[in-house]
Amino acid sequence: ENSQERFGEEVARVAELAKELQDSASSFISRTTNEEQSVRQRAVAINSSIQKLHGSIDSAVKQGSFDRKEAEKLDEELYRARCILSDGDTASFLPNKSHGRFLKMFLGPINVRATRKDVQLKVKEEYNSYRDRTAFLFLVLPSTLLLLRTWIWNDCLPALPVQMYQAWLLFLYTSLALRENILRVNGSDIRSWWIYHHYCAMLMALVSLTWEIQGQPGCAQKQRGVQLFLQWAVMQGVAMLLQNRYQRQRLYTRIALGKAKRMDVVWGETAGVDGQLWLLCPILFILQGFEAYVGLLLLNTALVGVVSEWQARKFLIFRLSYFNFEVVVCGTLLVIMAVGNFANTVQTLMAKSRF
Amino acid sequence: ENSQERFGEEVARVAELAKELQDSASSFISRTTNEEQSVRQRAVAINSSIQKLHGSIDSAVKQGSFDRKEAEKLDEELYRARCILSDGDTASFLPNKSHGRFLKMFLGPINVRATRKDVQLKVKEEYNSYRDRTAFLFLVLPSTLLLLRTWIWNDCLPALPVQMYQAWLLFLYTSLALRENILRVNGSDIRSWWIYHHYCAMLMALVSLTWEIQGQPGCAQKQRGVQLFLQWAVMQGVAMLLQNRYQRQRLYTRIALGKAKRMDVVWGETAGVDGQLWLLCPILFILQGFEAYVGLLLLNTALVGVVSEWQARKFLIFRLSYFNFEVVVCGTLLVIMAVGNFANTVQTLMAKSRF
Ligand SMILES: CC(C)(COP(=O)(O)OP(=O)(O)OC[C@H]1O[C@@H](n2cnc3c(N)ncnc32)[C@H](O)[C@@H]1OP(=O)(O)O)[C@@H](O)C(=O)NCCC(=O)NCCS
Ligand SMILES: CC(C)(COP(=O)(O)OP(=O)(O)OC[C@H]1O[C@@H](n2cnc3c(N)ncnc32)[C@H](O)[C@@H]1OP(=O)(O)O)[C@@H](O)C(=O)NCCC(=O)NCCS
Repeated sequence: ENSQERFGEEVARVAELAKELQDSASSFISRTTNEEQSVRQRAVAINSSIQKLHGSIDSAVKQGSFDRKEAEKLDEELYRARCILSDGDTASFLPNKSHGRFLKMFLGPINVRATRKDVQLKVKEEYNSYRDRTAFLFLVLPSTLLLLRTWIWNDCLPALPVQMYQAWLLFLYTSLALRENILRVNGSDIRSWWIYHHYCAMLMALVSLTWEIQGQPGCAQKQRGVQLFLQWAVMQGVAMLLQNRYQRQRLYTRIALGKAKRMDVVWGETAGVDGQLWLLCPILFILQGFEAYVGLLLLNTALVGVVSEWQARKFLIFRLSYFNFEVVVCGTLLVIMAVGNFANTVQTLMAKSRF
Repeated sequence: ENSQERFGEEVARVAELAKELQDSASSFISRTTNEEQSVRQRAVAINSSIQKLHGSIDSAVKQGSFDRKEAEKLDEELYRARCILSDGDTASFLPNKSHGRFLKMFLGPINVRATRKDVQLKVKEEYNSYRDRTAFLFLVLPSTLLLLRTWIWNDCLPALPVQMYQAWLLFLYTSLALRENILRVNGSDIRSWWIYHHYCAMLMALVSLTWEIQGQPGCAQKQRGVQLFLQWAVMQGVAMLLQNRYQRQRLYTRIALGKAKRMDVVWGETAGVDGQLWLLCPILFILQGFEAYVGLLLLNTALVGVVSEWQARKFLIFRLSYFNFEVVVCGTLLVIMAVGNFANTVQTLMAKSRF
């Protein structure tokens, strides 16, 4: 009887606590929602004042009613005020960068922006370490396929391992594209091209999955396209490893400098790391050249394939020309990616050398 | 000179405002972080008291020192307290449901949980309307392919449209799986199976992409597998439409009932909608039967294909048996999905009829 009462009391107490907590949670949420709203409005207001002032100063200079030297000083001060807003704790209250169609397509209208700066940095770090793990596989998987091809498979790749590798590529590029879109929402300045580049790579992986991996006879020649593709992948692995090394050091320098962002570029504080860029870029250019070369070779293979096979077995022409259509798509994509990568690397370098 | 001064003052004022805002944003964030922490701790503490009490009452009943009738009453009260925590505003302060490996693989360690209940409901609604749009395409695309096949393509599907459709399927299942994982993090009670089901479907779409779509001669027979696959897809579209209708009404009933959740099942308030379930389920069972049938037919096609082709052209056997390997995987996956869907539909019905 005694324990019965005790249990009854305790249950009542717990139920009471739950109700109290529910009330304080509700009031906490409504209070913070209001306060958040007001911080948000102030942020938007200040941001637009900055833009307006910037515009008026510019036009005053153009009309000659304002000294250029003086204007530059004021502009710099405005820029600094803007950096305070966009790089500090206020950043999360500025209007959301649009999530972009890609994220919406895959995830729906969910918010992926982290409010706290340290969480945002953690996401960035995790992205970097993901790229590290990936670059390793990027190097190992295609190399293994190529080695096994010579050692065990008698120059004739079986379809299953190649297709599993291509499926992995598709997954990888999708996840990279998703993660980079998320980084962008969280305030990264990543250029759109590097994301588009991964869309192209996704498409390429998808198309390569539909390649028919042909067997004997004449395997070595028929599989020339696949082989080139794998060789390019190995090179891509090397590029990723180098790039990661640089990006990681860059992030650490930034974190060490107190989580500042654009400001440190203006004040030139990451110069130590940016020096590395001049070492990295020549290597990147070589790799990009190789990428274009592989693309052109693929296009070439496709055309030659049509001609020689046409002569050998006319009756198969429909299927073969279809096979080549896929190779043509992959070749074209590789060339586009190479040109885009080159152009954007050059633009990055130019933007950096301006400071 | 006058305007120069004015600009200078305004810039200084804006810079001052930016600094002030930065300060209040920082203090706001640190204040709310602290308060959130305390709400979180209280929620965890109450939750574990509930569990402990539940355990002690149970063991007291087993030892015979406590009346069973009385215990049930207390248990119900505890259950209600728990519902207050997990369905109200407190829900977002309970320890995160783990994000699951799938989300981490694609998105990294980003938080996709919405704090506010109305946002969570919006996500759920958007998921439902996404399914609606999808179900429509699910019906239209494969039907179109099948119709064009008879009307225009002379019983011989060209590879490109089929592969584009398969790529769309892969994208679709991936996005559904991602969205359902996100819903789960946001407190949905979706059974794991419905998510696994989409993993299976992803795998099937991936494997089907590597199918070689063979042309003439003997097209109709060679493409039997693809054709079955498309027919199954049409049925799947019908199933989705019916299911959506039901789920949407269910959600609206819930929202109308004031966003209650498990509670309304206990109090039996969604009975009106759950009645529909008894109409929906027989249709679902028929579709699941058809799914299994298509799976078995695919397996059968693969085997018959091997035998007849073996006799016809022995020299092609390696490639053909490989083609069949893919059909075997798809057939097996279909059978697994049918059995799993059936088992889980039955379990859902049983769970509902218990109240
Ligand atoms: C040229 C390069 C080294 C410049 O890197 P960088 O100095 O970080 O460039 P930026 O200062 O413009 O970077 C701005 C932001 O974009 C990110 N970024 C730059 N290039 C990126 C890339 N290729 N992928 C993903 N993110 C990238 C940076 O991390 C930075 O993010 P943050 O704002 O969150 O800190 C880099 O873009 C690169 O390696 N590109 C070549 C890639 C290539 O061609 N690969 C294929 C070769 S076959
Ligand atoms: C049987 C069925 C109608 C029951 O639906 P229900 O009444 O909503 O089931 P529950 O009460 O268990 O739902 C719990 C949660 O899971 C969700 N859910 C249930 N089945 C789902 C499914 N198949 N896909 C996605 N979400 C589902 C519900 O929306 C609900 O979410 P919420 O907690 O966020 O509100 C539904 O599961 C169904 O249609 N299954 C059959 C699907 C099928 O077999 N398709 C293939 C045929 S070929």
